[in-house]
Amino acid sequence: MSRRADTDVADLVERARAGQARAVARLISLVEDASPLLREVMAALAPHTGRAHVVGLTGAPGVGKSTTTNALIRELRESGRRVGVLAVDPSSPFSGGALLGDRIRMGDHAEDDGVYIRSMASRGHLGGLSATTPQAARVLDAAGCDVVLVETVGVGQSEVEVAGLADTTMVLLAPGMGDGIQAAKAGILEVGDLYVVNKADRDGAEKLRRDLRSALRLGASWADRAEGDWEPPVLGAVAQSGRGIPEVVTALDEHHAWLSGGEGLALRRTRRARAEVEAIAVAALRAQWDDVGARGADLDSLAAAVAAGESDPYAAADRLVGR
Amino acid sequence: MSRRADTDVADLVERARAGQARAVARLISLVEDASPLLREVMAALAPHTGRAHVVGLTGAPGVGKSTTTNALIRELRESGRRVGVLAVDPSSPFSGGALLGDRIRMGDHAEDDGVYIRSMASRGHLGGLSATTPQAARVLDAAGCDVVLVETVGVGQSEVEVAGLADTTMVLLAPGMGDGIQAAKAGILEVGDLYVVNKADRDGAEKLRRDLRSALRLGASWADRAEGDWEPPVLGAVAQSGRGIPEVVTALDEHHAWLSGGEGLALRRTRRARAEVEAIAVAALRAQWDDVGARGADLDSLAAAVAAGESDPYAAADRLVGR
Repeated sequence: MSRRADTDVADLVERARAGQARAVARLISLVEDASPLLREVMAALAPHTGRAHVVGLTGAPGVGKSTTTNALIRELRESGRRVGVLAVDPSSPFSGGALLGDRIRMGDHAEDDGVYIRSMASRGHLGGLSATTPQAARVLDAAGCDVVLVETVGVGQSEVEVAGLADTTMVLLAPGMGDGIQAAKAGILEVGDLYVVNKADRDGAEKLRRDLRSALRLGASWADRAEGDWEPPVLGAVAQSGRGIPEVVTALDEHHAWLSGGEGLALRRTRRARAEVEAIAVAALRAQWDDVGARGADLDSLAAAVAAGESDPYAAADRLVGR
Repeated sequence: MSRRADTDVADLVERARAGQARAVARLISLVEDASPLLREVMAALAPHTGRAHVVGLTGAPGVGKSTTTNALIRELRESGRRVGVLAVDPSSPFSGGALLGDRIRMGDHAEDDGVYIRSMASRGHLGGLSATTPQAARVLDAAGCDVVLVETVGVGQSEVEVAGLADTTMVLLAPGMGDGIQAAKAGILEVGDLYVVNKADRDGAEKLRRDLRSALRLGASWADRAEGDWEPPVLGAVAQSGRGIPEVVTALDEHHAWLSGGEGLALRRTRRARAEVEAIAVAALRAQWDDVGARGADLDSLAAAVAAGESDPYAAADRLVGR
């Protein structure tokens, strides 16, 4: 009971819902640190979730994600909306986060209590999106954020991951970062609900927008489109000056309205919950496998047998799951 | 028994070991297609694995991975070694592989039966390294390849994945693709056993090599180095002309010798087998979860309850694993 005396989850959730930034911060820390209270926190938050529009923002390093996030916050605040930002940096474990000090610019909003910004380090070598990001997004949702922006460095896998997490995925590009076809190789044409070419005042921006539109039309998902399906717009913006940002917010709102008008929102959220539940279940099983099992079939000794050619991976997996 | 009449696994493995390219191709197809014979194939291969030097080659799009692979094959063939190549393209599902026709250049070796090249599409949205890549590498290993090169488009996650798969990870860079610090954001400084700056005849190549060396020395893994640890070399090459490629092969051999001299090779291979076994076990459990469970706790209905705020992800995961 002494832990409950230190941290009253119900009270914390109440204060977070009332907009207290410190309570929000504490809840996200409980989530990030996999606190023993985590289950209690998630159970207390569940009834209050589902209101926020979760927007994933992804793009290669250097396209201006932080500047764009900043501009989007400003625009969303002007329309009176509360904004939460989770900045996930899938960079190397040794840096512990951004190397370039990007985050500092977000200090612009430090005194606005309608904005909550949190930088989330990705943990360990299997980084990308931190496993706790979906839970942190739930905290911001329950805390009354109208929009939750999840910003990731778009390097391959994390783009796909952020698309799994978000209601709306916005892919940011910029001219001079490699051509459109190269971009296609990283799979971004599959994930975007909205494409924004930042630095639209630079050479090559118009060409990039044209190339992107062509590439999108070449994609299989385009061919499968039906009447009434969402057509991802390809917008231009100059985040530094704010040019084009109101149009980006309008497009985000339109996508949200489109999703809400059909089954899209429920489908995406069920898919997201599915991935979350599965990840938590898999993590629980992995923790079991790391112990020496009652069957003597712990993962380490099975792996050693496979490496030595004494067993094969399928036979070892069968033993692990107790077949 | 009729299936056995069509595909005699033992015979196929025997022919693959004798160097018949069609038998190798058939075995990899059985692996890729998750054939019902897969378990039998892997069990038959196991005793013949562990000889090949598995080299991961990764780098951003445009650095010249295919050209470098080509040059490495040529160099390895000159020293009489048999070479297997798995070209994994973590690009979008709709492209089904490379968009740029990179692979065509590999046709140079089409008539050399000491070279086996296979392009492996990554499957589905959770692509990156195809889940079957480690098994395909086992096929090439058992088929007598001295070196198995696994080439991936290095976009974040896949670099880390290829490092998990390989004995030796070679990171390819090129000048003019963004500065060293940007490279660091994608985590490549953690994974390389060997760094090669391709297009070394271009402006900025020397600076890139210097920056890389500095960045490597700033890394945590450098500080933890002990006497006798491997120091990742940073080489230069012009793959197009073959300049520097013999030195790259020498460095690969040196790393292999270093690994073999200590416990490094066994450790890496056990780690690799561990990841393989775990992935197969998780896939088996996921397949179970997709069915309506005996407890009525199938993943879809649990996910729908979480999405609706009626449950939380932890409670749902507990039900899924039957706690």
